[in-house]
Parts: sequence; structure tokens; C-alpha cells
Amino acid sequence: MTNSTLTLAQMLIARRSLTPNDDGCQQILIHRLAGLGFKDEHMDFGEVQNLWLRKGTEGPVVCFAGHTDVVPTGPAGQWDSDPFTPTIRDGLLYGRGAADMKSSLAAFVTAIEKFIESHPDHKGSIALLITSDEEGPAVEGTVKVVEILQARGETIDYCIVGEPTSTDRLGDIIKNGRRGSLSGELTIKGIQGHIAYPHLAKNPIHLAAPAIAELAQTQWDNGNEYFPATTWNISNIHSGTGATNVIPGEINLLFNFRFSTASTVDSLQEKVHAILDRHGLQYELEWSLSGKPYLTPRGILADALSAAIRTVTGVEPELSTSGGTSDGRFIADICPQVVEFGPRNATIHKINEAVEVADVEQLSHIYQLTLEKLLLD
Amino acid sequence: MTNSTLTLAQMLIARRSLTPNDDGCQQILIHRLAGLGFKDEHMDFGEVQNLWLRKGTEGPVVCFAGHTDVVPTGPAGQWDSDPFTPTIRDGLLYGRGAADMKSSLAAFVTAIEKFIESHPDHKGSIALLITSDEEGPAVEGTVKVVEILQARGETIDYCIVGEPTSTDRLGDIIKNGRRGSLSGELTIKGIQGHIAYPHLAKNPIHLAAPAIAELAQTQWDNGNEYFPATTWNISNIHSGTGATNVIPGEINLLFNFRFSTASTVDSLQEKVHAILDRHGLQYELEWSLSGKPYLTPRGILADALSAAIRTVTGVEPELSTSGGTSDGRFIADICPQVVEFGPRNATIHKINEAVEVADVEQLSHIYQLTLEKLLLD
Repeated sequence: MTNSTLTLAQMLIARRSLTPNDDGCQQILIHRLAGLGFKDEHMDFGEVQNLWLRKGTEGPVVCFAGHTDVVPTGPAGQWDSDPFTPTIRDGLLYGRGAADMKSSLAAFVTAIEKFIESHPDHKGSIALLITSDEEGPAVEGTVKVVEILQARGETIDYCIVGEPTSTDRLGDIIKNGRRGSLSGELTIKGIQGHIAYPHLAKNPIHLAAPAIAELAQTQWDNGNEYFPATTWNISNIHSGTGATNVIPGEINLLFNFRFSTASTVDSLQEKVHAILDRHGLQYELEWSLSGKPYLTPRGILADALSAAIRTVTGVEPELSTSGGTSDGRFIADICPQVVEFGPRNATIHKINEAVEVADVEQLSHIYQLTLEKLLLD
Repeated sequence: MTNSTLTLAQMLIARRSLTPNDDGCQQILIHRLAGLGFKDEHMDFGEVQNLWLRKGTEGPVVCFAGHTDVVPTGPAGQWDSDPFTPTIRDGLLYGRGAADMKSSLAAFVTAIEKFIESHPDHKGSIALLITSDEEGPAVEGTVKVVEILQARGETIDYCIVGEPTSTDRLGDIIKNGRRGSLSGELTIKGIQGHIAYPHLAKNPIHLAAPAIAELAQTQWDNGNEYFPATTWNISNIHSGTGATNVIPGEINLLFNFRFSTASTVDSLQEKVHAILDRHGLQYELEWSLSGKPYLTPRGILADALSAAIRTVTGVEPELSTSGGTSDGRFIADICPQVVEFGPRNATIHKINEAVEVADVEQLSHIYQLTLEKLLLD
């Protein structure tokens, strides 16, 4: 069975596609899907290769999204087999990208192939949004494709991002959203002076401490059905001239919110300013939004994917919004329902990254059944 | 009047005695006092020259203490006259060290000369303790002389340090003590982690904030008749890996007490530990005592000096313990009554350092009257 998902995953793993290098992966996908009527559009920016593949012009549009780039291998000598030579041992397929996320890419393709073979007259459209810049800065990748689609009014109805979301066994976790990330660079002002004459100075460290204490114990929200409560953390704090007899003139802090959809950027900013103001502080505060949150509540897509998982694996998937940011945050701008689902993530970004061989074909089957639920009447 | 205090002050200012260089100043003092029966002992350490001059073997011992070294001039071009060319303009004597403290040294000498001339059979002994390391690290200077005197059981009954203590007019301030300086290097421990998973980390900045807030508003003591309340200040605070997505593993602080004799080193340390412990913090704390406090309550010396000031200037002096540390803290180890008194300090360590010409002879007269009150029956 030369056309199996496993074989395709192995072909992709053999490509040294260290971020942001695609190293020919996208050509493999195009080659497999062109004969089925998919049209390829290339949206490259600098070193980053982005690919938009679409079959059909009608709605609903079901999109599979993912990335061909992988993170560096770390010391290759610590791998039990070469990271770019896909190797099967004891039921596991080893290689950089095996789990994150070349098996998902392979499963996208074979699921689509089987679906179209069985249902050549399906309704709607099928698309793939593929980038080589997910593991890097992620500024020339998915976000750019979404901007282009948005500019020409093209939307997606359902999107499955192939990120490795499964934890203990294939199918146990679907991510149906991600928290947002909002950062602040805060400078609190005091008055510099000699430590022997503190009445002539205003110690910004002392002024800041009660406000920091209050910020640290503030309950920003209680989360909601899908999100844990918003968290706030200071990552860096610095004040002092180095001299031990000088009260410094200011203190600098960097902080970060990981926030749920129970809060908004505006509501969090207002609360921080209110606390700083109530403490009578003189300060400067620069905000930067590094990732909007997104959320796909239970509905057509999450239900279809969950049912497919149950059928294939017998596992009842849990919806989760935990973890860092993902490209889902960008796609959500043009797609009301975005979820992430893929193989187990225990070994991603590590030495000896691997995926269970049995999971690879099951993953393809799950994606195929999901297509059937979404694109058949 | 070639032997006037002013002339002697000018001779001393002409020496480029940048700390720790004495540049011959002590030889000038020896030359002036040798004929009156003073014996000179040299206690030099490295580049530092220390001089112990004493006339007499009986008690009480009255000692004048001071330093010949001066701080750097800063940009010499910004001075209106060369800093080592003593220059009189508009009733002021300009030059580096004019106020801190070569006029005091000159006044010591002429006061002693006049006193002995009038009272050759005075009781007790007169001494001078002179160093060239007061403006520098102060580790090879007065502290070393005191150690040597202490080792051989030699004590002082009354000591006047010639520091420029006067503020608005000559005689308004006598320093009768100085606060102590106690420093701490504090590390508060947390657990490092990713900012997206704060439940797996313990943010040491957040843990520290309430304790810092409490320390900052703690009333350590209420001072006493002579001292303002003890103050506590953080001079430096640092935490963070530089990365904005990492909760750091620890926070580092440097703090300093300026403490009155209403507290002790032990009492302050206990209170800090109690607060840190009550907040349940895991921490390491290194203490260092950079200066013990000293205090000379009203009594024979302070009263004698105050009376002399009133007589000469008509000013009622105020006793004060404010400001940084001084060599008085060392001398207090072998002398129960130490005070500091000298000319106005408005220009010390600055461009165009100067002393009022009229104050120079008045200062000598004050020292002379003080000797009369202490060493005549």
C-alpha cells in the first residue's frame, strides 16, 4: 500500500524543512492533490513559503491548516536514529516533525483523497492552508495568507488545524480555542536620591510594591465554560543604579496576561490602569497585543470532529483551550469555527520525536469522517 | 599677621592632596606643633598617611581629628580660580579643601598654639588624629589608628572632628552622632516556568511584593532625643531572564538601613527575618554592617563646645545626627564623647569650594575656648 498515510508522512519527514525552510514539502502536497482538482496559489514572503490549495467554489468551505516547517533537532547525536531519516521501531515512527506536524499533513491528504474517491459529487469546497513559518516568528506565514483571503472577501466555514493536541492517547484532546496574550512594559517613577537622605527622594521600588502585590492577587475573571481564568505575571523587574547608597529614580517591569474570552483587551487594560492610579503612581505603560484569544464553542465543527474521533478511536474527546498561542488565532479572523486536532504531543520539540504508527492511519480516518459529516447532505 | 589661621589654611590648600595623597600637609602640622612639645607618630598603611600627635601624658585627653585628603576637583576649567591656588574674592577663600577640611586643620593648630601660649601649665593632654584616607575607602585611615591606640590601651576623653557641619551660618550645627548603616543582600526563591503555565511555576516577584510593601512601611523605631527614626530602603531589585514568556526562578534585592541608637543591629535583623518568615518566603539573606552608629549625648564636651560657639558667634548651636557616616564612628570606640564641628558645608565636594574668611579665625577661636573649658581647672 504505497500510497498510505504512513508512506507520505515518511516522505515529508525526510525533507530537512527547518523553519522557515519548506524544503519541497509543499510541492509533495500539490503533486498529490492537483489531480483531484485542487488549484494551488503561492503566497511567499521572504524565505517563508505559504500555500493555499482549494477545490471547488461553493460553500461550505472546509479547510485543513498546518505547517511544513519543523524546529531544530538539537544535538543530532543524541537521537537514536537520524532525525531526517524516518525510522520505525517498536511501533513508533521517529523523525523531526513526526508529531509536529508532518503526520497530520499526510493525514490531511489521504483523508481528502479517500473522501473524494468515495464522494466525487460532495457539496462545498475543500482547502488547505499551509505555511513554512509556524515554528519561527509567525509573521510572514498564516497571518499573511489570512490577510490576503480577507482582502478578497474569501472566507472559511470550518477549519481544522493539524497541531498535535492529543495528550495521553489519540483523540483525547481537541483544542477549541486559545487564550490571548497581552503584554505591558511598565515604568514607575520615583525621585532619585542618596540613601542617607530618603526624605529628599521617592523610592520607586517601595512605591511599586503594594501595587504589584495587588495586581498579583487580582482575580481578573473566572474564565468561562471553555477557558480557565485569566492569569497575569511579571516576567522581568529591574531597578537600581548598581550603587548601594543610591535610591533609584524609576523601576521597570515587563508583564504578560494570558487571557480568556471572559475578559477583553480593553477591560484588562482598564483594570491595570485603575490599580496603578489608585496607588497614586506616576507611570508610563506601553501595551502590546501578541495574540488575540479565539474560541469555537460546541457546534457543527466540534461535534463533527468529536463524533469522528469516537467512531475511530472509541475515545470521548475533551475540548480544551490550554497552552500557548497557535495559528488558529489568525484563521479565526475569517472563519467562525476553528479547532485544532492532531496526534499525541508528548515528544514534540524533543530528542527522538515520534508518533505511534497506528495513530497515523487513524488520524487520516478521523479527518475523512469529519469531511463526510461536513460535506455530505 | 603671617601666622594667622587664614595663612595656614592657604598653605594647606596649596597642597594637591587628592585622596589618599597627603602631599606634605601633615609635615606642615608637625612643623608647627613640634616646638610646643607635640610628639609625632606615623601610622602609614600603603598609600595612606596617618599621624598621631600628642602633647602630655595625663588625662583628660582632648583630641582634634581630621583629614588632609580632598576629593577630586571635577573639571578644573569650571572653577573661577585654580582649585589648588587658594584665592580670596569677596570675603571668601576659594580652593579644594577650603571647607572640607583644611580650614579646620589650620584652626586646630592656631587654637592649640594660642591656648598653650596663654596656659602653658594646662592640665591633661592635647592630641591630633590626622589621616589622608577619609574621602576614599576609609579602611586604612582613622580606623587603623584607633585600632593601634586601642591595642596599647590609649584612650581619648573628648574628641572634636573638624568636619564642616555648619549649614546656614558658622556654629548652627554640631553633629553629636551619626546613624549606623546596615546592609542586606536578599534572594527570594520561586520556581521558574513558562508564563503560559503559571500553575506549574511560583513567581518570586509576586511572592516578594507583599513582603516588600510591608518592609517599606514598617516603622522600625521612633528615633530618640538625638536621632530621627531608622530608615530602610531598597537600592537595587532585579529579577527576570530577559525573555518575556518566562517566570523567573528568583528575585535579588539590595537594601540598607540607616539606623538610630533606638534600634540595634540584632533588633533590625530579627524584624526583617520575622516579616520574611511571616510571608512564608524561601530566601537567603546576607547581612553586612558598614557603619555602627555613635552618639554623644549632651554633657561636658557638647556643652563646652556649644558655650564656645555662643561666645564667639552669638549662635545657639543645634545638636544633629543627620547625614552619612563619618570617622567619628571609629573614634567612638576609644572615646566616650565625640562631636563634629567645622565651617559651613554648602560648597563641599563642589566646583568653587569656599569658606568665609571671617569664619576661619572664628573657628580657631571656638576651638581655643573649648580647650580652655576642658583643660583649665
